[in-house]
Amino acid sequence: MQEILRTSFLILAIIFVNFGMVYAQDAETERLKTERRDLMPVPASVNWKSGRLPVSKTFSVAIKGQTDERLKSYIFRVMRRLEGRTILELPREYAIDASSAQLLIETQSTGNAVPKLGDDESYNLEVTDRQAVITAPTTVGAMRGLETFLQLLESDREGFYFPAVSIQDKPRFAWRGLMIDSARHFQPMEVLKRNIDAMAAVKLNVLHWHLTEDQGFRIETKKFPELHQMGSDGLFYTQDQAREIIRYAADRGIRVMPEFDMPGHATAWLVSHPEIGSGAPGATYTIERRPGIFDPTLDPTNEKTYKLLKAFFKEMAALFPDAYMHIGGDENEGKQWNANPKIQAFMKKNGIKDNHALQTYFNKRLLEFLQKDGKIMMGWDEIFQPDLPKDVVIHSWRGQKALADAARQGFQGVLSNGYYIDLMQPASQHYAVDPIAADTTLTAEEQKRILGGEATMWSEWVSPETIDSRIWTRTAAIAERFWSPREVNQIGDMYRRLAVVDIQLEELGLTHRKNQAMMLRRLVSSHDISALQTLVSIIEPVKEYRRYNLRKQTMLSPLTGLIDAAQADAPNALIFNRAVEELISGNSAENAEKIRLTLTEWRAAQPKLAAQVETAAALSEAKMLVANWQNINAVGLEAVSYLEKNETPPAEWRDATLKTLSELTKPQAALEFAIAPGVRMLVVAAAEMSKLKNASASERREKIRSIAFPKPASKK
Amino acid sequence: MQEILRTSFLILAIIFVNFGMVYAQDAETERLKTERRDLMPVPASVNWKSGRLPVSKTFSVAIKGQTDERLKSYIFRVMRRLEGRTILELPREYAIDASSAQLLIETQSTGNAVPKLGDDESYNLEVTDRQAVITAPTTVGAMRGLETFLQLLESDREGFYFPAVSIQDKPRFAWRGLMIDSARHFQPMEVLKRNIDAMAAVKLNVLHWHLTEDQGFRIETKKFPELHQMGSDGLFYTQDQAREIIRYAADRGIRVMPEFDMPGHATAWLVSHPEIGSGAPGATYTIERRPGIFDPTLDPTNEKTYKLLKAFFKEMAALFPDAYMHIGGDENEGKQWNANPKIQAFMKKNGIKDNHALQTYFNKRLLEFLQKDGKIMMGWDEIFQPDLPKDVVIHSWRGQKALADAARQGFQGVLSNGYYIDLMQPASQHYAVDPIAADTTLTAEEQKRILGGEATMWSEWVSPETIDSRIWTRTAAIAERFWSPREVNQIGDMYRRLAVVDIQLEELGLTHRKNQAMMLRRLVSSHDISALQTLVSIIEPVKEYRRYNLRKQTMLSPLTGLIDAAQADAPNALIFNRAVEELISGNSAENAEKIRLTLTEWRAAQPKLAAQVETAAALSEAKMLVANWQNINAVGLEAVSYLEKNETPPAEWRDATLKTLSELTKPQAALEFAIAPGVRMLVVAAAEMSKLKNASASERREKIRSIAFPKPASKK
Repeated sequence: MQEILRTSFLILAIIFVNFGMVYAQDAETERLKTERRDLMPVPASVNWKSGRLPVSKTFSVAIKGQTDERLKSYIFRVMRRLEGRTILELPREYAIDASSAQLLIETQSTGNAVPKLGDDESYNLEVTDRQAVITAPTTVGAMRGLETFLQLLESDREGFYFPAVSIQDKPRFAWRGLMIDSARHFQPMEVLKRNIDAMAAVKLNVLHWHLTEDQGFRIETKKFPELHQMGSDGLFYTQDQAREIIRYAADRGIRVMPEFDMPGHATAWLVSHPEIGSGAPGATYTIERRPGIFDPTLDPTNEKTYKLLKAFFKEMAALFPDAYMHIGGDENEGKQWNANPKIQAFMKKNGIKDNHALQTYFNKRLLEFLQKDGKIMMGWDEIFQPDLPKDVVIHSWRGQKALADAARQGFQGVLSNGYYIDLMQPASQHYAVDPIAADTTLTAEEQKRILGGEATMWSEWVSPETIDSRIWTRTAAIAERFWSPREVNQIGDMYRRLAVVDIQLEELGLTHRKNQAMMLRRLVSSHDISALQTLVSIIEPVKEYRRYNLRKQTMLSPLTGLIDAAQADAPNALIFNRAVEELISGNSAENAEKIRLTLTEWRAAQPKLAAQVETAAALSEAKMLVANWQNINAVGLEAVSYLEKNETPPAEWRDATLKTLSELTKPQAALEFAIAPGVRMLVVAAAEMSKLKNASASERREKIRSIAFPKPASKK
Repeated sequence: MQEILRTSFLILAIIFVNFGMVYAQDAETERLKTERRDLMPVPASVNWKSGRLPVSKTFSVAIKGQTDERLKSYIFRVMRRLEGRTILELPREYAIDASSAQLLIETQSTGNAVPKLGDDESYNLEVTDRQAVITAPTTVGAMRGLETFLQLLESDREGFYFPAVSIQDKPRFAWRGLMIDSARHFQPMEVLKRNIDAMAAVKLNVLHWHLTEDQGFRIETKKFPELHQMGSDGLFYTQDQAREIIRYAADRGIRVMPEFDMPGHATAWLVSHPEIGSGAPGATYTIERRPGIFDPTLDPTNEKTYKLLKAFFKEMAALFPDAYMHIGGDENEGKQWNANPKIQAFMKKNGIKDNHALQTYFNKRLLEFLQKDGKIMMGWDEIFQPDLPKDVVIHSWRGQKALADAARQGFQGVLSNGYYIDLMQPASQHYAVDPIAADTTLTAEEQKRILGGEATMWSEWVSPETIDSRIWTRTAAIAERFWSPREVNQIGDMYRRLAVVDIQLEELGLTHRKNQAMMLRRLVSSHDISALQTLVSIIEPVKEYRRYNLRKQTMLSPLTGLIDAAQADAPNALIFNRAVEELISGNSAENAEKIRLTLTEWRAAQPKLAAQVETAAALSEAKMLVANWQNINAVGLEAVSYLEKNETPPAEWRDATLKTLSELTKPQAALEFAIAPGVRMLVVAAAEMSKLKNASASERREKIRSIAFPKPASKK
């Protein structure tokens, strides 16, 4: 389903609006900092008290109520993380006297050992001068409370402490997922494990495991071993490994739902079983290496297809304990069906009027198997049609409206449109998407059918080395959207807290930050990466699905280029663009100086980098990027100079410079300058500020923005 | 064996001499750069030719001769690393026509699938404009050649290429090991695997796996499961995992030799089997948590001990295919033996005159088992005595002389004295130690008995997060000592190449560089670590075994402090100290300015850091360190000021300042300033340079050094 989104594209102005919002909320951010501290996701209810619970080396834990090994192991791990942050060796034995322990955890029930949809994840957390108490109906609720507890840790001159607080918390949505595509690029066990740990840290509760694709069949089957043997290049999960992941996730209160995408996205199946494909008789297939939508499709008119799938699903139903099984169903363009006379004859004979109806026929056959295996079917929007059983879950890449329509007809749904983290968009953009529109006309009952959402990590362009940096930390903002009240939606405050979570996730072994420097060192074969780091802090990979068109690679290509080291939400660009907003809104002299100093610093880094790209062949694709950076920087400095001198540039300067900037900021090596919006605004400000002296701050911003980002001409 | 070294200590002057050598070799370094490029270990023979073999996306590989799956997998991995560096997607199929392939690998024999001591590891590598050809008698030789081949990769304006060259290479020593202590701190599978990859990259060929200790029994036994169950906190390797490591290592041409340390270092055995201990009847034991030498010792007079050990060794002999088995034998102080009347009676009855003789009796009993199991015994110096069979290998922590003495008596030996990488000494110090003294009087035949050496990673103070940074990259210098000709010993050139290997090891997943920034972020809970990074680039953990005395921790303590983030060979200290040497030797005005700029930059970082240590409680132990840094820096700037102004400080200034420096550079938080030698020299230079105008550069250096580092007074 991700490929179709290609048709849309992100215009510069969208990013900019978000940065604008960051700025606009600065006053509010101060208040929210006091109200929320570093909690993410923000709990349903937080009341800060006066007082603090200090952490010393005698900090002890007690447990009460119904506890299980899962909880004990979770507590053990949380205590080790607390030790890591405080450098204190804490007692490993539980306190005998619950009342004297610094942390008391009381659970009423162990809950389901393997989590189920709808499990009670609520908890209360009370911290006083004397003790922190987590109470929860279930083990999983206590786990959620423990993560909140760790996020409370602060330090000052007096040492580490937990501030006194009273928290009542529960999730807004029951389905809070992360989809990992292990098919296009196989992801080793440790990648899954550390990402499961990170999911638990931000209270996500579903790992949607995308296991089959055109580019790979990644799960061992004992019934049809040829499927994984011939469809995976040897890169697949054994059933023992799948069980290990399920156990690992369950121990962290996370469900594992597998996806076997069909009838499209099925090339890897057909490598060993061409007879169930819809191609011409005798057609053979090889594992697909390109990204995109491909023709090979399972044959829904062939009983052999069902014979295989029935046995396959039975095997998988036994392997995966979750009640839900995802059958994909997306992006079947039906080309092989149209071209196959046998299939056309079948449709005619059975009164199947079109490909959508044929897919529905296919789905109903699958549904029958799944129901016999005790599973509930889930699939992308395409599977929807009104006479499906009402427990089927619609997974929407199309959006809120499609989901709401399904809900009105009695169907449950999960939203992924807006949460496609492979598109390299800023966290703010995902954060602004709510599974239920603010102006929804759904009844309360219908709204309940919106189960939640899922961030989707499609893996065309991620390797084990880079995947963490694509998932995190933006997915923490999405996790907050799924857990916290709708009203928790202030972008500036979100980014502030995201930066804290960013560091905390590293203690779980996540590599989203630390691999960047390593990748840059490899690119230049040198420890001297300061100039390159400066560049990388202001550039981002192109958004949406533009990467492939600009920089053709296959699933076998190395993902070690500058684009792979670059990340969404380039941190210095965020700061730079915000500074320009401040300049326009407030005291221009002071902010102009700040901007000039930044641009001067960047300019100082450029000669070194220009020399490095000349000889480091792995950076040769970035030569033009570096040259453009030098010119963009010069434009910025020129604009600042006008502003600082209170000089008005020549009449033609503004538009000519904007035009130049449009050229200079075109993607190079599939990378774009995230400072482009700020520099454009700066140029317009230099030309217009003197004319806008009497305008209000918001009028100035509006005027400058409208010139800097003219509305695109209507489509041809 | 490491504990006893505590009595020695490293004086400042030793580090300094090494840095001095770095400087002194600068002229030579230029020549060596051309001669050796980035090869490490330097091959036995290298002849550069003119021409180059370019790397493009059609770069193909062919194989000839006897090849096995191990070699094919190795080639596959090497090609992926080449792709990672070049960002080129290379062909995955072998070239059909060997003559047209860019890389041809020809092996005469597959050699031993599980490597053995003495395997032929030689190879030839010829690169011309047209083709690179690796020829080797065995698979393992080809692997060594492939690593050299990757190290040849260079790039310039024209792109990536391999320079034309003719290399004939083979190791100087057959035993080139890294000991990893998995007992004191358990190291997960992925830690072992990535370090095995790194070992192969620098041509090490023995993983000596230290599996039992006072602090942990880390290997599953099926015969006595209580041993690992009660002796490991649940942290042990299953036999399947041990086989996985043996296979993983074998696939990289690396032997795995286990060590079961006895009769001392055996507390963890006695937790489940107190009856074989030498303590009082009824004594019980718990897993030891402290570092050090402990009393619990196996009872050599109890037949139950031998019954258990016989069965245990039989099981381990079947699990570990290597011909050698290490029985430790070190640091048995015999306190329990002295105190046990039963043991004393046994000695009297059997005419065993002392504890050493009793341990020899014990060893002979073990030897009998091992011989029956087809194994050759290895142990630390303490096991040596003349009537052992001549194939026993003596592992020397005592040094070259002990090893030479054993060789004279016909015994083989492996040196570890000088290669204790847990002592946090500079690479240069390890590099200067040769397994055979330069002035050895051993005959050629006797010298052959010196099999090689092993770097030892004792794990009192390493976690999975930090262990890579303790092993690498210093161990690459040790690996060169074991592989390359004795004459390859130029420290400046070694450090230059070490910095390159440092980056290349990261592509194997090693975390020696990238975890530091992560640890610093955790310490300050902030992304703003620039000031802390500046500090960390000039400080080092205290050397030898001083850490524990200065900063008491146990095996359960978090290893997340500033000392754990700091590393040996602090890079900016190396540069700083060298700059001071240059100032003294050469043009003082120019160098004084360089030093002043550096100190000024450091000074600028200090206020931020001083503020951070005030509120980040995890850094509170470093408050005095930061305060001292400010003062040391001020002293440095004062000295530079005198030098730049050509002023002579007041007569009493020099000695008073040196005294102050001695105070300021005392360890804080078990960290020391690696710039201390440079600052002391600077102070003396400021006071003495004007008097030394007519002295030669070497006279000046000698004079200044003698004042800066007075000979320690003779011991009281």
